Amino acid sequence: MSIVTIERKVLEKNDALAATNRHVFARNGLLVLNLVSSPGAGKTTLIEATIAHLKDRVRIAVVEGDVQTDLDAQRVARYGVPVVQIVTNGGCHLDAGLVAEAVDQLDLDVVDLLVIENVGNLVCPANFDLGEAMKVVVLSTTEGVDKPLKYPAMFRRASVLIINKVDLLPYVDVDVQVIKQHARQINPALVVFETAATSRLGIPEWCDWLVSALSRGHA
Amino acid sequence: MSIVTIERKVLEKNDALAATNRHVFARNGLLVLNLVSSPGAGKTTLIEATIAHLKDRVRIAVVEGDVQTDLDAQRVARYGVPVVQIVTNGGCHLDAGLVAEAVDQLDLDVVDLLVIENVGNLVCPANFDLGEAMKVVVLSTTEGVDKPLKYPAMFRRASVLIINKVDLLPYVDVDVQVIKQHARQINPALVVFETAATSRLGIPEWCDWLVSALSRGHA
Repeated sequence: MSIVTIERKVLEKNDALAATNRHVFARNGLLVLNLVSSPGAGKTTLIEATIAHLKDRVRIAVVEGDVQTDLDAQRVARYGVPVVQIVTNGGCHLDAGLVAEAVDQLDLDVVDLLVIENVGNLVCPANFDLGEAMKVVVLSTTEGVDKPLKYPAMFRRASVLIINKVDLLPYVDVDVQVIKQHARQINPALVVFETAATSRLGIPEWCDWLVSALSRGHA
Repeated sequence: MSIVTIERKVLEKNDALAATNRHVFARNGLLVLNLVSSPGAGKTTLIEATIAHLKDRVRIAVVEGDVQTDLDAQRVARYGVPVVQIVTNGGCHLDAGLVAEAVDQLDLDVVDLLVIENVGNLVCPANFDLGEAMKVVVLSTTEGVDKPLKYPAMFRRASVLIINKVDLLPYVDVDVQVIKQHARQINPALVVFETAATSRLGIPEWCDWLVSALSRGHA
């Protein structure tokens, strides 16, 4: 029972730090995405494709979260955008305090869109608000149709679902309509995109939506 | 800092319960696998294929762990083996106490091989010993080559790596030799199998190995 109390304290502390982050982001007119998924669903490739598509129109910065290695930061840095790597050293999620430290390394005056790539994990990151405008959950078609039902907290708290690797649909026994149906059963308000980030399929539609969110001052 | 102390207490308590489980498993001559992976890597399909292949030779029981739903238990139950579903209700991993409760529902006298399917998560389950003989980590080829480096604790603590969905290799930019190289960099002792569980490719080799582990009294 004491564990529950401790967890609540951890979450309360995180929520207070997230509120501070949200205030900082709003003051700087930033749109902030918290990108979540299973390991290997394609978050980093989606970030690369998004930067490549929007680079001339939107000033983007990235915070990379990983249990180990700075492989993802290296990949993103090749696109010439500011990137900060958080290594959690075994930790299963980012929290608002870690993000605050990372954001301190960035010049927010020259950023419109901040993408935070969370640790690959469909469970724990659902509970930790980072101060983002929205959670974007990436699901690979190869993961099957049942993930929204099996990891409901994440899909309930997300604003956007990106169904990635649709180029592999001919080779897997997965119906993308059933994924959508399950996702909307958990969260009817989800905005859904279908992409194949490696071949840039669906990236223009996703990026147009991002640009309109930026122009609406969604942050 | 108090959090670290609490975590340690949780792990110490878990380790004590895991030792009890291990004693119970040994007394009953059971081989127990703790099956771990990202969501959607194919753990349940691998269990189905393993049961289909070994059913006439080995008495198998399954404990299913999920954040929500009993979809996996329903799938496995169709094969006519005893199965117990643990729903963690948001919890990101199984622990030894939950497994002890689940195993209480099984008649261990008529079981040779117990497969525990953990929650789909490459991070948290690495820290929680369930009393198993070995952790078996399943990695889908679609997850890319860098996962052993990015989630090293899991690969270090596993005895077996099953690289699944090798039938999708022609359609993804992934070299299975690089996956192996990264995995063995983290854990040189890993026993590696390549499978496509949906089409049963590689399942006979994996099952033969399991049978020899059973006959060696690996439990």
